[in-house]
Amino acid sequence: MTTDDRITPGAPLDAPRLVRAQGVTAPLGFRAAGIAAGIKASGAADLALVFNEGPEYAAAGVFTRNQVQAAPVLWSRQVLSTGRLRAVILNSGGANACTGPGGFQDTHATAEAVAEALSNWGTETGAVEVAVCSTGLIGDRLPMDRVLAGVTEIVHEMGGGLSGGTDAAHAIMTTDTVPKQAALHHPQGFNVGGMAKGAGMLAPSLATMLCVLTTDAHATAEQLDSALRLATALTFDRLDVDGSCSTNDTVLLLSSGASQIPVEQADLDAAVLAVCDDLAAQLIADAEGVTKRIVIAVAGALTEDDAVTVGRTVARDSLVKTALFGSDPNWGRVLAAVGMAPVTIDPEQISVSFNGTPVCEGGCGVAGAREVDLSGADIAVRIDLGLGDASASIRTTDLSHAYVEENSAYSS
Amino acid sequence: MTTDDRITPGAPLDAPRLVRAQGVTAPLGFRAAGIAAGIKASGAADLALVFNEGPEYAAAGVFTRNQVQAAPVLWSRQVLSTGRLRAVILNSGGANACTGPGGFQDTHATAEAVAEALSNWGTETGAVEVAVCSTGLIGDRLPMDRVLAGVTEIVHEMGGGLSGGTDAAHAIMTTDTVPKQAALHHPQGFNVGGMAKGAGMLAPSLATMLCVLTTDAHATAEQLDSALRLATALTFDRLDVDGSCSTNDTVLLLSSGASQIPVEQADLDAAVLAVCDDLAAQLIADAEGVTKRIVIAVAGALTEDDAVTVGRTVARDSLVKTALFGSDPNWGRVLAAVGMAPVTIDPEQISVSFNGTPVCEGGCGVAGAREVDLSGADIAVRIDLGLGDASASIRTTDLSHAYVEENSAYSS
Repeated sequence: MTTDDRITPGAPLDAPRLVRAQGVTAPLGFRAAGIAAGIKASGAADLALVFNEGPEYAAAGVFTRNQVQAAPVLWSRQVLSTGRLRAVILNSGGANACTGPGGFQDTHATAEAVAEALSNWGTETGAVEVAVCSTGLIGDRLPMDRVLAGVTEIVHEMGGGLSGGTDAAHAIMTTDTVPKQAALHHPQGFNVGGMAKGAGMLAPSLATMLCVLTTDAHATAEQLDSALRLATALTFDRLDVDGSCSTNDTVLLLSSGASQIPVEQADLDAAVLAVCDDLAAQLIADAEGVTKRIVIAVAGALTEDDAVTVGRTVARDSLVKTALFGSDPNWGRVLAAVGMAPVTIDPEQISVSFNGTPVCEGGCGVAGAREVDLSGADIAVRIDLGLGDASASIRTTDLSHAYVEENSAYSS
Repeated sequence: MTTDDRITPGAPLDAPRLVRAQGVTAPLGFRAAGIAAGIKASGAADLALVFNEGPEYAAAGVFTRNQVQAAPVLWSRQVLSTGRLRAVILNSGGANACTGPGGFQDTHATAEAVAEALSNWGTETGAVEVAVCSTGLIGDRLPMDRVLAGVTEIVHEMGGGLSGGTDAAHAIMTTDTVPKQAALHHPQGFNVGGMAKGAGMLAPSLATMLCVLTTDAHATAEQLDSALRLATALTFDRLDVDGSCSTNDTVLLLSSGASQIPVEQADLDAAVLAVCDDLAAQLIADAEGVTKRIVIAVAGALTEDDAVTVGRTVARDSLVKTALFGSDPNWGRVLAAVGMAPVTIDPEQISVSFNGTPVCEGGCGVAGAREVDLSGADIAVRIDLGLGDASASIRTTDLSHAYVEENSAYSS
């Protein structure tokens, strides 16, 4: 697969091609828009719409595992039980979480308003076909007069071209510094596009992760669900900025079927995975206060779950993260973190390398370990547990002054 | 119980009295010393000895739960299986963790040297009666020439007075800014003393927690073990600076029996708990980079374990900790953290207060919640789960720029 920021119109494809200049409107049959509805005090764009023109409307979603779930998560999970969506409305500037029955009514009213506006625009739509996503501060009610006025306006803003997708990707940003989009053009003739915002695992807290994926492949809701669960498990689920889990995380996949090309499950799986993987890399690169992009690769585990658990434990360890912020090859902290993981390990079998240089073998330090150069922006930590054949990687970031600064005065 | 920095010699006690100017040498039958043996490059004090003159030598210990355990932890756990100790030797300036069989031999050699020096000094002692504790950077071998020379010297430095205990408390410091000591004088005539170093739960990573407690009560090893486990479960186990768990954490309790006063288990439990509780408060107040002292009190839980788990999850949440560093009453982050705890909760039953002011009732925000003043150094977070009668409190700290600074360049 090749990665490029442009795709040459009409050029024959002999391999899947991934581009970052396109997002949810890259597949046929989707329109999108992003506007400033006045939800954010700053006046920045804060309302986005993704609209599926059909002819098919299959959809799937995965949501936060936090037990405290925002109203839009409760709503969208419910409407997705039909396996069908015509539109997704997303707002930044407020999470609508911990807002009680009134907050849920706000979400419901937003979906009703989108359905009504789309129906007036010429596409008969029910509220139950509209998913809602929100991101921003937890605990405040949304300014519903602005949200509802924005909904009417945004339906008229839906462009047919790629720019609508880019506008939508901008409108869902909170602490993101750049919009995140990716699209994959498959040689078989179908396409997958996506946009995302946030800065962490499928489950960051401040920076809720929202992601909308689209495809014009002819696929059932079950096919979409299977592809989405596989892809998120291997990508967004293996990001971990701070171990904090949001009340609002949502990843949706909609299919228009507009390419009229039936797709094998394996091809769909691979395409959705490739787009999610690229969006995940963009999220981690823009994570809050990041100065280092870190991959914790765990090998030699008894099971893949064990490898994920060890990787996540190390990725969440504040002492490991501050050391890497300081470019300090303090491998002992990695060992201490591994020893905290709730899986069986043998300390005397553990080996660790930093950027390919061994720093610990059989649980003991290697000569020169303190001199490894970690001054670059990318750090590869490899941990071999020496017990089995399973492996997994977790992407994370350092713990920097900028992280503390950005998160110390968010609501006030 | 009264707390005072002085105790009037000979004054009758009608209630247990806690003092902070005394530590391990407050009980009868103990000597201690602290010296600079050259283990730390800075030349600061780095070797401490606590010596039990008897006539009894019962002892108990609790150790880190990390699966990666330092050589001194492996050694001390082993010798404590006898329930008997004559001495504890402690060094700062190196953790002797992840140092392999050579590191274990170093610990063994240290214990042998202490036993030999004490025997030469006139008290026949075996290495199996000497516990060893180490703290500092993980992964490096100790400079054994300096350690062994220091052992010979320190035995001759043992003072009979209180100052030896204070010297020992100084010598075990790493990133601590002040030594931590406490002693309890019981009206029944027995005493409990202790010293501690570190900055976190029974299990911080950088700042290994070491604690040596002494008593002159007549008590069996089983009595000491019971009192120690109860006290640590309620104090050091409920500190949580960064969720990181050390390879070296050790808490020891030695009894000389020198008061010749037999003690009821309940009285011993209460006395050991009081000293541990005071040392725990001193540890959290001096935790790395702390600008806020935070108590997370969880009530209304189904079980005490649930309350501890919820409190610990909130105490470890980087987004909660950075918000409190910024004096930001961002209660939504508390709700999001509670929702991540692996216990059953009902989001609509949760209430939260900051410093006694309600900020969330029934899972929703309370008017004025964003205006709560958290600018002081002490913050009380109270979480009522609304499900049962069990409760527990966790002490923690904020996540500050100083924490990042102090931990970003420790080994290099």
